[in-house]
Amino acid sequence: MKRIQTVLVVALSSFLVQPWIQGAGNEKPLDGYTAASSQTERDWEAKFRALPSPENAREYMRRLAARPHHVGSPYDKDNAEWLLAKFKEWGFDAHIENFDVLFPTPKEEKLEMVAPHHFAATLSEPPIAVDPTSSQSSEQLPAYNAYSIDGDVTAPLVFVNYGMPADYEELDRYGVSVKGAIVIARYGHGWRGIKPKVAGENGALGCIIYSDPRDDGYTEGDVFPQGAWRPPTGVQRGSVMDTDYPGDPLTPGVASVPGAKRLSLAEAKTITKIPVLPISYADAQRLLAELRGRVAPSGWRGGLPITYHLGPGPAKVHLLMKSNWDQKKLYDVIAKIPGSDVPDEWVLRGNHHDAWVNGAEDPISGLITELEEARAFGELLKQGWKPKRTLVYCAWDGEEPGLLGSTEWVEAHSDELLQHAVAYFNSDTNGRGYLDVDGAHVLEKFINSVARDVPDPEKDMSVWERRKLTNIEHASTPEEREEARNRADWRIGALGDGSDYTAFIHHLGIPSADIGFGGESGGGIYHSIYDDFYWFTHFGDPTFAYSRAESQLVGTAVMRLANAEMLPFDFTGFADTVKRYLANVQKVLKTDQDELRERSRELEEGVFNATSDPSKPLLAPPKVDPPPFFNFAPLENALDALSASAERFSKAVAKVQASGTPMPASIITRVNRLMMQSGPALTDPAGLPGRPWFQNQIYAPGAYTGYEAKPLPGVLEALDRKNWKEAESQIPREAEALKRETKIIDDATALLQTGSEGQSSSLP
Amino acid sequence: MKRIQTVLVVALSSFLVQPWIQGAGNEKPLDGYTAASSQTERDWEAKFRALPSPENAREYMRRLAARPHHVGSPYDKDNAEWLLAKFKEWGFDAHIENFDVLFPTPKEEKLEMVAPHHFAATLSEPPIAVDPTSSQSSEQLPAYNAYSIDGDVTAPLVFVNYGMPADYEELDRYGVSVKGAIVIARYGHGWRGIKPKVAGENGALGCIIYSDPRDDGYTEGDVFPQGAWRPPTGVQRGSVMDTDYPGDPLTPGVASVPGAKRLSLAEAKTITKIPVLPISYADAQRLLAELRGRVAPSGWRGGLPITYHLGPGPAKVHLLMKSNWDQKKLYDVIAKIPGSDVPDEWVLRGNHHDAWVNGAEDPISGLITELEEARAFGELLKQGWKPKRTLVYCAWDGEEPGLLGSTEWVEAHSDELLQHAVAYFNSDTNGRGYLDVDGAHVLEKFINSVARDVPDPEKDMSVWERRKLTNIEHASTPEEREEARNRADWRIGALGDGSDYTAFIHHLGIPSADIGFGGESGGGIYHSIYDDFYWFTHFGDPTFAYSRAESQLVGTAVMRLANAEMLPFDFTGFADTVKRYLANVQKVLKTDQDELRERSRELEEGVFNATSDPSKPLLAPPKVDPPPFFNFAPLENALDALSASAERFSKAVAKVQASGTPMPASIITRVNRLMMQSGPALTDPAGLPGRPWFQNQIYAPGAYTGYEAKPLPGVLEALDRKNWKEAESQIPREAEALKRETKIIDDATALLQTGSEGQSSSLP
Repeated sequence: MKRIQTVLVVALSSFLVQPWIQGAGNEKPLDGYTAASSQTERDWEAKFRALPSPENAREYMRRLAARPHHVGSPYDKDNAEWLLAKFKEWGFDAHIENFDVLFPTPKEEKLEMVAPHHFAATLSEPPIAVDPTSSQSSEQLPAYNAYSIDGDVTAPLVFVNYGMPADYEELDRYGVSVKGAIVIARYGHGWRGIKPKVAGENGALGCIIYSDPRDDGYTEGDVFPQGAWRPPTGVQRGSVMDTDYPGDPLTPGVASVPGAKRLSLAEAKTITKIPVLPISYADAQRLLAELRGRVAPSGWRGGLPITYHLGPGPAKVHLLMKSNWDQKKLYDVIAKIPGSDVPDEWVLRGNHHDAWVNGAEDPISGLITELEEARAFGELLKQGWKPKRTLVYCAWDGEEPGLLGSTEWVEAHSDELLQHAVAYFNSDTNGRGYLDVDGAHVLEKFINSVARDVPDPEKDMSVWERRKLTNIEHASTPEEREEARNRADWRIGALGDGSDYTAFIHHLGIPSADIGFGGESGGGIYHSIYDDFYWFTHFGDPTFAYSRAESQLVGTAVMRLANAEMLPFDFTGFADTVKRYLANVQKVLKTDQDELRERSRELEEGVFNATSDPSKPLLAPPKVDPPPFFNFAPLENALDALSASAERFSKAVAKVQASGTPMPASIITRVNRLMMQSGPALTDPAGLPGRPWFQNQIYAPGAYTGYEAKPLPGVLEALDRKNWKEAESQIPREAEALKRETKIIDDATALLQTGSEGQSSSLP
Repeated sequence: MKRIQTVLVVALSSFLVQPWIQGAGNEKPLDGYTAASSQTERDWEAKFRALPSPENAREYMRRLAARPHHVGSPYDKDNAEWLLAKFKEWGFDAHIENFDVLFPTPKEEKLEMVAPHHFAATLSEPPIAVDPTSSQSSEQLPAYNAYSIDGDVTAPLVFVNYGMPADYEELDRYGVSVKGAIVIARYGHGWRGIKPKVAGENGALGCIIYSDPRDDGYTEGDVFPQGAWRPPTGVQRGSVMDTDYPGDPLTPGVASVPGAKRLSLAEAKTITKIPVLPISYADAQRLLAELRGRVAPSGWRGGLPITYHLGPGPAKVHLLMKSNWDQKKLYDVIAKIPGSDVPDEWVLRGNHHDAWVNGAEDPISGLITELEEARAFGELLKQGWKPKRTLVYCAWDGEEPGLLGSTEWVEAHSDELLQHAVAYFNSDTNGRGYLDVDGAHVLEKFINSVARDVPDPEKDMSVWERRKLTNIEHASTPEEREEARNRADWRIGALGDGSDYTAFIHHLGIPSADIGFGGESGGGIYHSIYDDFYWFTHFGDPTFAYSRAESQLVGTAVMRLANAEMLPFDFTGFADTVKRYLANVQKVLKTDQDELRERSRELEEGVFNATSDPSKPLLAPPKVDPPPFFNFAPLENALDALSASAERFSKAVAKVQASGTPMPASIITRVNRLMMQSGPALTDPAGLPGRPWFQNQIYAPGAYTGYEAKPLPGVLEALDRKNWKEAESQIPREAEALKRETKIIDDATALLQTGSEGQSSSLP
């Protein structure tokens, strides 16, 4: 902390002599840059973008995915040390940071059908001859779901579709209960940890999760090794940690370093309440074929050549799961290039390096793009380039089990990050296709500006243009289509959960973005032994052309943000987006009101009775009182103020830029500092209802969706749970977050106005 | 003709003494009845509805479905003679009418895959032990598609989804041509005859049609004999006659009686241009599994455990189809109860008796309901009841090959029918569930009135109420839902094609309705050997409760229409519906305009290029000039006039009914005669463009949909073919049809006004 404060005073010396004027040429200066610094930046960026090499990316992948490298495995540590050496070789100041975390691995697992006849599930993925690493069975983690509680249960089987809350409402209408049963759910439509969670809440004793061929197997395309999709014996491993908080289950909110206060296993809230096992569709078919009872609703039926029934039974299943509940050591690789002007402002970039098995696609396809960025920066350093701000390049361990490495690191460094972090850029898997960005909306305009400068490897256009044209094609309404055509920037999505940005944005509020290409690779090897070099070089991104594009894109973003005189955060875009989120919340409320009123009316009319076939009855849904109207005024007023404030700030920035008058460095520094507080200002130390670790009041993943974002989560999540009172009670809290943001923006505007009135005497 | 005119003069004598007044009790008189006659009618109807017996229905089915009874088979004739005897036994004046028609049956058929390896399709349906009639192989027609041209072709295979026109547009975008190929299409989404038609138009040499398990096999439910759905070896037979005209392909527009002018086989337009064979999904899987090339679009993938590819090849197929092109004799059973008052006004009722094999569901489930109506009328006759109008009960032969029996009979009797027919009521298959009615909209209000008086066998409500509540549940918009709640009558659908009403309504314009229960039986035995007594009594309507309900419903409709003093046709409902059809046509035009303009714009923007994956490219769709704006004024004006005219008529009827003044019988007779002309007034002797046999300008099946109705067909069908000029040119023709209708209604109104002004001196 002390070190940083000293550095602050000498910041941005070069900026003093650069007037904020339009570029002399045709090109508008980059946002946050002077005309001259913009030109310099563009020149360096062009040099940078020439450097990433597909061949290097391929070789990194060959090395990093050569052996299984899950948390605690020899090759996980080996990879971390290799990464460390690489970063050092490229001129980074790098080290490994360790954390000791709870990471269970299978000790004993068994799944057998005991009635109507015996069948033992294989629970294993066989090697495939053409695929050399698929035979590394001695190092492969067995197929399992990490953080499943130990258990040994025998019970009739019930099919629960994707096992999400709405599926249980449907089961109720069919008169099928999972109480005392083992459920079998298919993968998809939400974080896999939701499936055992909801099953347990409904009284199930155990949970099986399988990959249906309709979701990522033969229905989608030819199966591996003929094609990219999941073969009958492929199994999706994965964590089933609950969504209360990510990271080490024993150290919520604090770093799992020596001496940290640790919960006992029994106290850990994020371990499942019932045992879970994942299986292949070859195994699943044997079980599902022995279910009878009602035929599953049409939307529930997958691609297996059977009639899907709900059960319960006659299939009866014995599920045994026991883990080694050891602590394992994480190896986070942290590599820095110190900033030349403002080393206390950090631009962070990360990707995880751990995998479930060989993990060529997940995560190596993302990690290799980060490595080529780092190598290219090393080259630029040799040519005399220096970033103004400090670059922090991270290779996280333990992402797969539950974002362990990034979460523990963020928890360990939260004070520093709140002071120094400008933004965090994440990638994870990368493939062929279209650019996809989710992130904090203050970065939306910035990301768009970067995407305009990166060529698409397949088409004669920028990745920005290709995304825009795709948005036109995929627009679901004419209004959406016209917006896709006419809006200056395309919209980025909100961040949910599922990769290492979570602790940055949801715990601390640091503006983050998750960036990747995809949509053309397809595939069904996710979290299986077949996610390896052979698969990726045949079906993922065989020429590594998109690996190069991703390096160019994210590297440019990192450089451009690191070198900007003024941080190019756009608050008008943020305000515009939050307005949409509010409109969405209001629409959800209205839909709840309409649907529940309609349901009551139909219950009174006897509609459900009239349309129920006595030979296969469908019970009426329960009567639920519709929500009342809410007082949205606090949010609406806060949002109005935020919009006005954001407008004033944009105008002030534009005025400074147009005036050509030099802006005192101290003002710029203070404005940047304020902007760096704007993300954390959205957090509330009390967190979300029931999820105190999630402090961001604007962005959050859903507690019952996992991956999917639930913007304005306090209200939206309570609506999902039909807790109308709690939903309304969260409106003022979200309004307060926006007010804090508004105050910061207003302060920044005032500073700029002061500065542009020529008070250059206030130099440091 | 002469006989009829004589009868006219003595008509409706009993009506003279019945004033048109409201009933004294709470019950409003039935439409078209006086208070007194309404009460009498209600009493007889109640007696009637007590008569139909599930046990009788079961025994009829046991008898009629005991052996295969397709056109030309011994049991087809045997059934006709049995039916004749039954009608006679019940007091009907009955006879058999014969026609000699072209009905090809297989002489030689073969389907084998010759590459990449050899596989011979079984083309047969094996007996199932528990199902006694499934083993009657010596009498069963082989699985085939009637009216397939003879052919012997060998070519690579291409998968074309449902084989409808839109599927070929999609294939174009995938760069796949069927020229010189044999296509394999799945059953569904349109008349099966469209599939070889469109395949041939696109240059294919042959066509295979199979039943995908996703459409009516294991994906839908347990397969026969465990459940109602299609087993792997089940094959759907069926006609592939083209849609230019139904009936004998050699005698379009005229009856195929001795001496009729017959086309040569080569001249017959409705025989396919390429050979066709239907197969089971067990056979289809073997062929589809050997296709490669592009993976089929996601909506095309069925339920087989394979990746669906488009081809062409490497599967190469040899298809051989040769028929005996014999004339076969049809046995239409025609049974009458002459009307006591107006024998020259006929209420017709029909169901076919021929089947593809044993046909318990199709058509015996419908025929047995008609038989119980007939038996009940026989009982009523014994009790002294007489219908005022003549009842004509028909059991058609040759429906399955192409509505042969009904079409030839209608063509033979068209002049009489145009003079005497009041309405035609059809059923075909019947099952458990909800009432479904398609028909002429002058009958909508009437059918609703009847449905209110028939109890649902499963629920404590009328079949009308159950349909209404179902409509509320299935409404797709809040507006539709409110209409379902608040409109006095639920809407009936428009008639397309697919059963024996076609010649009545589409050729002659006679108001018709197709009535049946269904939605709870399910099943996949359609046109297979498993559609038999065993299947129906296990899965169709095992208690025959809905057989009874159908007899009650259709029988009540027949009685009520036969005994009404004034025909209860409702022209306001008709006008209201045609307004909706016009709005639909205008919406289709607008959508075409918007979509084709949007497409042009996207072509210019390069959207299709940008979103095409180079490793699996999707070609841009062709540029098509959007349609111009049309002059709809002629139709809009005609419709306005029709609405006003219908309103005036309704008011005139209400006034007569309220006045209590006796209405001269001659006036009533003339008003009824006018109403009987109102249906035929919608026809135009020149027919529809390209389909002269289809003369109705308001109702028609689609030339490229078959089953589905295309109301205002002249405009709508031309829009489908993107022939903008022809589309607009049909507007005045449709307007003229409405003007003819309006004139008739105005004449009837004038007559009623004359009559109600007390001119009772104008008695005959």
